[in-house]
Amino acid sequence: MNQTVYMDHNATSPTRPEAVEAAARAMQVGGNPSSVHGQGRKARRIVEEAREQVRRAVNAPASAQIVFTSCGTEANSLALRGSGRPNVMVGATEHASVLRAADAIERIPVDVNGLIDPFQFDEMLAGGGDDKVISVMLANNETGVLQQVEGIARIAHRYHALVHTDAVQALGKIDVDFAALGVDLMSLSAHKIGGPQGAGALIATKDVKLTAVNPGGGQENGVRGGTENLSGIAGFGVAAELAKAELPDMARIKALRDRLEAGVLELSNEANVIALLTDRLPNTSFITMSGVDAETQVMAFDLDGLCVSAGSACGSGKTKSSGVLGAMGIPTEVAKTAVRVSLGHATTDDDIERFLSAWAALYQRKSRARSAA
Amino acid sequence: MNQTVYMDHNATSPTRPEAVEAAARAMQVGGNPSSVHGQGRKARRIVEEAREQVRRAVNAPASAQIVFTSCGTEANSLALRGSGRPNVMVGATEHASVLRAADAIERIPVDVNGLIDPFQFDEMLAGGGDDKVISVMLANNETGVLQQVEGIARIAHRYHALVHTDAVQALGKIDVDFAALGVDLMSLSAHKIGGPQGAGALIATKDVKLTAVNPGGGQENGVRGGTENLSGIAGFGVAAELAKAELPDMARIKALRDRLEAGVLELSNEANVIALLTDRLPNTSFITMSGVDAETQVMAFDLDGLCVSAGSACGSGKTKSSGVLGAMGIPTEVAKTAVRVSLGHATTDDDIERFLSAWAALYQRKSRARSAA
Repeated sequence: MNQTVYMDHNATSPTRPEAVEAAARAMQVGGNPSSVHGQGRKARRIVEEAREQVRRAVNAPASAQIVFTSCGTEANSLALRGSGRPNVMVGATEHASVLRAADAIERIPVDVNGLIDPFQFDEMLAGGGDDKVISVMLANNETGVLQQVEGIARIAHRYHALVHTDAVQALGKIDVDFAALGVDLMSLSAHKIGGPQGAGALIATKDVKLTAVNPGGGQENGVRGGTENLSGIAGFGVAAELAKAELPDMARIKALRDRLEAGVLELSNEANVIALLTDRLPNTSFITMSGVDAETQVMAFDLDGLCVSAGSACGSGKTKSSGVLGAMGIPTEVAKTAVRVSLGHATTDDDIERFLSAWAALYQRKSRARSAA
Repeated sequence: MNQTVYMDHNATSPTRPEAVEAAARAMQVGGNPSSVHGQGRKARRIVEEAREQVRRAVNAPASAQIVFTSCGTEANSLALRGSGRPNVMVGATEHASVLRAADAIERIPVDVNGLIDPFQFDEMLAGGGDDKVISVMLANNETGVLQQVEGIARIAHRYHALVHTDAVQALGKIDVDFAALGVDLMSLSAHKIGGPQGAGALIATKDVKLTAVNPGGGQENGVRGGTENLSGIAGFGVAAELAKAELPDMARIKALRDRLEAGVLELSNEANVIALLTDRLPNTSFITMSGVDAETQVMAFDLDGLCVSAGSACGSGKTKSSGVLGAMGIPTEVAKTAVRVSLGHATTDDDIERFLSAWAALYQRKSRARSAA
């Protein structure tokens, strides 16, 4: 059988060899970063070096707080529950970890392309923003759609709201610039950029007074209890540095993605690419195949050795259709046929051909079955 | 200079080579355990294999829930906030992650040896336990004192309270038997048993209805959101298996610990071992040196290449005295001179000699300084 073609980088990107090495090395150092003795100080140095690597990767100022967490979900939770703002307002297409971060969350509607309307957003804030933290993701995990976070932050700040952006999917795919975006808080995750699973970070300006969700032993400046994941953090730092350095390769990946989309659209007029003409991540494509459930497609592709997904990995296994597409007003019968293809640095021309052949074969099989029925 | 002697296993035990290897291998597999495609299923198998390894290591029944978390702190938080019981009652010498897990926590007093008095405990429950979750640690992280958790669970269950035990420090040092203890919930952590940092687990009987603190994408059966730390979990599983297999070596370690304590007590009648005659972990010793601050001792030992700690690692760096000893009624001027020595499988006879020489030298230096003053 052919080698597996991995096109699910938005779920987890394969761990970079340099990150594996850094993580294994850190594991061998061992030591508890909170211990004051020599072994503890060695561990502490690893954590602090990674913190600087992460800081530089997103151009956060030296004064910014960088809190290591166990994942993006935890970073989102800390941002929305630990910011001191009781009222949470988030985009309707946010990741489940944002949508479910608090009990009562107000949703900001999006249009059919997944974008927040600035006029409507401004109106929603008319009552004031002092009590609010607003979360709008930089790039959507399923569609790849890029929100205008810089503009959203400008509007929100006019009403004195705090602004958080979930940059988990954006990092490593577009240039993520904490300072230029003007946000107060930003979530990151290691395993989306070729770092190990089990490490994430919340970045906050010096002015945000963060309160721990789990205070525990007072680690991470009292903001995140629990012994730091030394190896995961070491791998995260290295991956963040490499992800930034390899951003130029995204132009090549975008060309591959564009060819994949053009190929599919050429194969059938029953195919659609969600938010085709909207600014999106260069590696992501969310493709519908009329009348064929996404789960069926994913399993068929899997048999052909192609790893793709039906929406977000977190949501998969559960066979309901994407909440993201629902929020965009896309009918359920279309939404439930959407398959996410997300490319990475290892993706080649051949992979695109493999995908297009598999797609064509599946589509023809399904079309024949329908005409026979 | 001599090689470093690591006597701070209760802070973090050096990662076992087998755990490093398993973790690195898992990192190379990559894949998101929630993905349905082949790569995701490979990752899922790693997680499920580790879950069985952890289950076997603590003799939890096949029906028990085993939820992977990022650390012991998170497991404790999930146990005490996610159990559905609004009122939390915990031992006075619990770890900070338990003491700070909820807003209003009732503390169960302990005696001068750190033990909960069963009569008093029974009386505290007289008002009923239906609304309560009770947390009593199996072994204290600083003193090593073993609570009578089995008996405590029996009493608590008579009042229909739920019982959680923080077994983070006990695992790998004494036989931890979830079923025999009769508890409802138990927390574990990988890095205390030679697994990687960044992985922990909460075990619960099938009857406990756990609610997520961070629901996120619904991972871990909806109880713990966030992509699983694949490599950390793989290393945890292997470490759990090895820790159990190597329990017999604890008899040797106990003999070393006993010799260390006897040696110190012989060197000076200004030394004391906390809870000397109480049932304790075989590897742990909490030793006071009259008139010499623990921080000073830790730094002096560090210069001699010996890694020990002033109380829990989480609390170190902060120069206040141990809350555990305070709860035991030990005066602050004694408590603040207590240094924790915690041995591991790598500890040798020579290490004990090194420690005793360093202790003697430090004590003499300090005594001379005092007589000169």
